[in-house]
Amino acid sequence: MARKVTLKSEATRARIFEAALRVFRERGFHAATMREIAAEAGVALGAAYYYFDSKNAIVMAFYEQAQQKMLPELERTLASSRTLESRLRAIIQQKFETFAPNRALLGALSAHIDPDHPLSPFSAATAGIRDRDTAFFERAIGESGVRLPPSILPYLPRLLWLYQMGLMLFWVYDKSARQARTALLFDKTLAMMLLLIKLAGVPLLRPLYRPAGELLKAIYGEG
Amino acid sequence: MARKVTLKSEATRARIFEAALRVFRERGFHAATMREIAAEAGVALGAAYYYFDSKNAIVMAFYEQAQQKMLPELERTLASSRTLESRLRAIIQQKFETFAPNRALLGALSAHIDPDHPLSPFSAATAGIRDRDTAFFERAIGESGVRLPPSILPYLPRLLWLYQMGLMLFWVYDKSARQARTALLFDKTLAMMLLLIKLAGVPLLRPLYRPAGELLKAIYGEG
Repeated sequence: MARKVTLKSEATRARIFEAALRVFRERGFHAATMREIAAEAGVALGAAYYYFDSKNAIVMAFYEQAQQKMLPELERTLASSRTLESRLRAIIQQKFETFAPNRALLGALSAHIDPDHPLSPFSAATAGIRDRDTAFFERAIGESGVRLPPSILPYLPRLLWLYQMGLMLFWVYDKSARQARTALLFDKTLAMMLLLIKLAGVPLLRPLYRPAGELLKAIYGEG
Repeated sequence: MARKVTLKSEATRARIFEAALRVFRERGFHAATMREIAAEAGVALGAAYYYFDSKNAIVMAFYEQAQQKMLPELERTLASSRTLESRLRAIIQQKFETFAPNRALLGALSAHIDPDHPLSPFSAATAGIRDRDTAFFERAIGESGVRLPPSILPYLPRLLWLYQMGLMLFWVYDKSARQARTALLFDKTLAMMLLLIKLAGVPLLRPLYRPAGELLKAIYGEG
């Protein structure tokens, strides 16, 4: 009996969640109200609040669900490719595809850069999602044969995560057909980044990596 | 007589403008209302609206005024220094100093990344301010002896402008004492950038500049 109640409860939660994403798409995130979300889901306002105490809570569930949904595909990517290039291409492409139906919602949320805002990708509240996401970049680097100075290598997963966030910020405002400009930005910057990584051992570039290492140590700390 | 009226009118406009910046600092930009601004300035609400038809209009005046205020100092910088490094240091430092009293306001405004929002640094409405600002970077490059491939050099002023915007975005959320982290970010990234510019002629790095040039051409167009 308890199990049945839980299933029903989960179904209601999912219905409210999906209704919210539809309302966000149609009305825009900022204009949408919990009342409209409840109406769209066909539940009482109190029921909607029982499952999600705010629109922000729905967004947090959205972040979590997107990450869960990508997990199997990301695991396949890591299992089936070995080079950093093919892995980064696949991981970041997967993000774009997962978020494509809710690109406008991400656009509305991109205003939250302030690390003090709970929905910010840099906030304490999203640290779990960020760390799990960064861990995939760490695994993408592993066994890929990447060689970087020890002053830089430990920070590479976080730098790649930041690179991905920059691409997504460009993408949410990209008005070109099928976001062709983002695809170009991704393609060219990836080539540049991989070349810089490849050249890391060249003495000529050593003066470039010294300030980079010092900066990373100061910004990210020893972690 | 007409001249007298104009002077009085300009004084009132300036009083409302200064009152608005105080209200933004004390109450925050989003919470502040035109009513509070009028009260702070000691004018009727209608008078406030006569000079500025919205809070956004005040922000636009704030951008314009900051640029005007920096003009003499920027001219001095260009006249007294010749290297790209010393010029960039002085120009960007000048921005930080000018905006320091209203850093929190810039933080609130930094949410407007969307190029469709009039207050966005990438909007059509701010194109004039952006172009005048970019022109200073263009003059900073001139006579500085910078040599870059012709596929990159024309875009350098806009890239430096974008670099400055990135620094300022970091700065508005920088909680370290006296924004020491921003100073470090500025120092180290400037060193890296100048080294990359210096190495542009080295054949080893040619593969780095090819995708960069293709990207710039596609994103910025031929201009």
